[in-house]
Amino acid sequence: MSIQSAIAELGKRFGDRVQTGDSVRALHGGNESYFDEILPDAVILPRSTDEVSEIVKTCAAHDCPIVAWGTGTSLEAHALAVRGGITLDFAEMAAVLEVNQGDMDCRVQPGCTREALNTELRATGLFFPVDPGANASLGGMAATRASGTTAVRYGTMRENVLALEVVLADGRIVRTGSRARKSSAGYDLTKLIVGSEGTLAIITELTLRLQGQPEAAASAVCGFPDIDAAVGAVQAVMQMGVPMARIEFLDAECVRAVNLADGREMPETPHLFLEFHGSEAGVAEQAETVRDIADEFGGSAFDWSTDHQVRAKLWHARHNAYYSVKALRPGCRAVTTDVCVPISALAQAVRETADDISQSVLMGPILGHVGDGNFHAALLIEEGSAEELAEAKRLAHRMAERALRLGGTVTGEHGVGMGKLKYMQDEHGDGWQLMATIKQAMDPKGILNPGKVVEVN
Amino acid sequence: MSIQSAIAELGKRFGDRVQTGDSVRALHGGNESYFDEILPDAVILPRSTDEVSEIVKTCAAHDCPIVAWGTGTSLEAHALAVRGGITLDFAEMAAVLEVNQGDMDCRVQPGCTREALNTELRATGLFFPVDPGANASLGGMAATRASGTTAVRYGTMRENVLALEVVLADGRIVRTGSRARKSSAGYDLTKLIVGSEGTLAIITELTLRLQGQPEAAASAVCGFPDIDAAVGAVQAVMQMGVPMARIEFLDAECVRAVNLADGREMPETPHLFLEFHGSEAGVAEQAETVRDIADEFGGSAFDWSTDHQVRAKLWHARHNAYYSVKALRPGCRAVTTDVCVPISALAQAVRETADDISQSVLMGPILGHVGDGNFHAALLIEEGSAEELAEAKRLAHRMAERALRLGGTVTGEHGVGMGKLKYMQDEHGDGWQLMATIKQAMDPKGILNPGKVVEVN
Repeated sequence: MSIQSAIAELGKRFGDRVQTGDSVRALHGGNESYFDEILPDAVILPRSTDEVSEIVKTCAAHDCPIVAWGTGTSLEAHALAVRGGITLDFAEMAAVLEVNQGDMDCRVQPGCTREALNTELRATGLFFPVDPGANASLGGMAATRASGTTAVRYGTMRENVLALEVVLADGRIVRTGSRARKSSAGYDLTKLIVGSEGTLAIITELTLRLQGQPEAAASAVCGFPDIDAAVGAVQAVMQMGVPMARIEFLDAECVRAVNLADGREMPETPHLFLEFHGSEAGVAEQAETVRDIADEFGGSAFDWSTDHQVRAKLWHARHNAYYSVKALRPGCRAVTTDVCVPISALAQAVRETADDISQSVLMGPILGHVGDGNFHAALLIEEGSAEELAEAKRLAHRMAERALRLGGTVTGEHGVGMGKLKYMQDEHGDGWQLMATIKQAMDPKGILNPGKVVEVN
Repeated sequence: MSIQSAIAELGKRFGDRVQTGDSVRALHGGNESYFDEILPDAVILPRSTDEVSEIVKTCAAHDCPIVAWGTGTSLEAHALAVRGGITLDFAEMAAVLEVNQGDMDCRVQPGCTREALNTELRATGLFFPVDPGANASLGGMAATRASGTTAVRYGTMRENVLALEVVLADGRIVRTGSRARKSSAGYDLTKLIVGSEGTLAIITELTLRLQGQPEAAASAVCGFPDIDAAVGAVQAVMQMGVPMARIEFLDAECVRAVNLADGREMPETPHLFLEFHGSEAGVAEQAETVRDIADEFGGSAFDWSTDHQVRAKLWHARHNAYYSVKALRPGCRAVTTDVCVPISALAQAVRETADDISQSVLMGPILGHVGDGNFHAALLIEEGSAEELAEAKRLAHRMAERALRLGGTVTGEHGVGMGKLKYMQDEHGDGWQLMATIKQAMDPKGILNPGKVVEVN
């Protein structure tokens, strides 16, 4: 069997670093989605790009699938070895290699997590802004084109990865892009590989853009009478060009969850959580502008604060919202959805989704990065209930279809993985076949994370 | 002959819209680079995406090259039909199809120029920010990943094209991306095609991101004792996070040219031209911050103004700088260079380039979009002088090598075309072969703008 012969060959080279024990395989066979666990045949923790290249060459010679693994926080089963094979866990390639303060960029290995990077950057006055919530690996974040609460200001991984080093399906090591801020020198291979979920190449190093710590930061919370008012305020804020650092929506049910978990007493209506970055005067001006807009849309008392503790508590509550929501139904599992639509369609998309969920037996609080038009419902189901899982899938399916109907995308930031594969044809039409053409050209044997993003024969 | 049979076949369908006269071919055979003119065999002005698809299918059946044409303002001979064939001139596909004020985006046809779009947008309070100087077509700007003076604030075509409609090499029509602000739904085909210079697909429609007109704008001019001081100030401004709308460098010789052409009396030392966008208070704060930084670097009296006429005159002078520089040597031709390096290497790159040029017989004023690390030298040669052309090429070659040595790129915004093809191997290594792999997969017959960006057998 080709996978077994690859493992045997790798064993000769890497000895017991080729791990085939049940526990390590089980650790790399689980996931945060509703898909069942699927164990890889072996796990290796490479220590260098050259080792990755060697492993890929061996796997290529034996037609053995390879799945890159960061922290396992993917929500769409990206890293499940659906065709078996070797999982490459980047835990031992997790270093910050270089920080260039003058250029506000850095080089990191793919296993480095965003929190580890930001800890390393603490003394420099710089930070890495992309924040998907989980303390994910930067390689995984690039592979899924992750974003999160700060994308409205600082962009997604698409905008923040300047260059990559990758290993191709035949083991060649290639550097894409450079540290120059812009270039017109040929096809943008960096942007092609960001978001390709390990199916085109394996990321072994990232050059990331960094941001200066803002001179001042402030946060605010504001309640609205209904979804339309909250989303209308968001649209007006974005049109005014206020450079929001964060503008997060929580529906009434989500607010209830946060109240319960955090001991807050927000009225149970849709809310916005906001953050402003800039100079002290700039932050004050932004906050006052947004307060005026919120007033027009019937917003509640709008208190903004630059107090570090107030801000930290607020964003802790937001980051924890996923767990707070799960706590609404103890022992449940959350089926997480992720759509993104043009801002003009956002109110309709959120309202229709909320109506749909309200008619279901399931709870499904809605929260989102609404400055980008991106939102999630966390559909709470009883662990092990096939009936409730089917109902969650039905609701999620209707959300995806609604997003496409409104000119949006079935995944704003979680990626395709296995969960969104079935929508790719509808979203991209012949563009999906074009993706398969590119996949076949770059990975003719189909060994890189097979079964994800595209379908090839 | 395959090209002639394609023309005959197209003639049956399009009649005398297939133009083969000398004058129309000559009009599409010239270019703004130092390459000699090369005439296409025929020119067609398509009127719809379906027509483009039909033409491509016919050309594919006859192995006939196709070159897309916008306004002919390319600086690297992108649109020369080096293997003959058909030039598709998009002059009749130049409409603004839709403006979505709520989403701050629009759909345009590829022949629409940036000035035409901004004229159309005038009443909306929105504008399209990418400004390469020339009144280029938006299709051409996307194809070359153009940028210009405002990229430091608003990004390049890479950041401002949200979605495309393209015709593939087999005639299939594909839509890439959507109007959603972000997506993780598979490979980023939009970003792959932006910058591909008509070699992977033909752009037939663009969805572009728009910006709100700033509430206030101010401009400023500041002289510095030397290159290091001017570039040092730029670096400090960028590190402070001042959201510069424009930050342009002109060396002493360039300042002399602008003085002569515009009747200004700036001291003949390196200068920065600056623009600030924001609220009234924000603009004032930005300008004061930059004034303080300029002071530290020995900057001259730093006057900033929100007066519309003062601003318009300044940017007119900057936009005209290319012609002002050419006027330093009447009747000359300018060989334009275009490198981009990490900001920390910018002072060295500019200084070494200026030293190099000062030791040459040629004049070569330097100017650039230094907030991005991007700059140009306009090397002035006598029209028809082989000796001076060789000297200009020698200087340009040393600039390109210097940029690569300093971790940069041989083209920040002009593209590869024919002029930069010889550096692709050095800049990308095996990444260039990967580009060829993608080209061969997407255009197996090699009919789309052959001879550009990649080399395939």
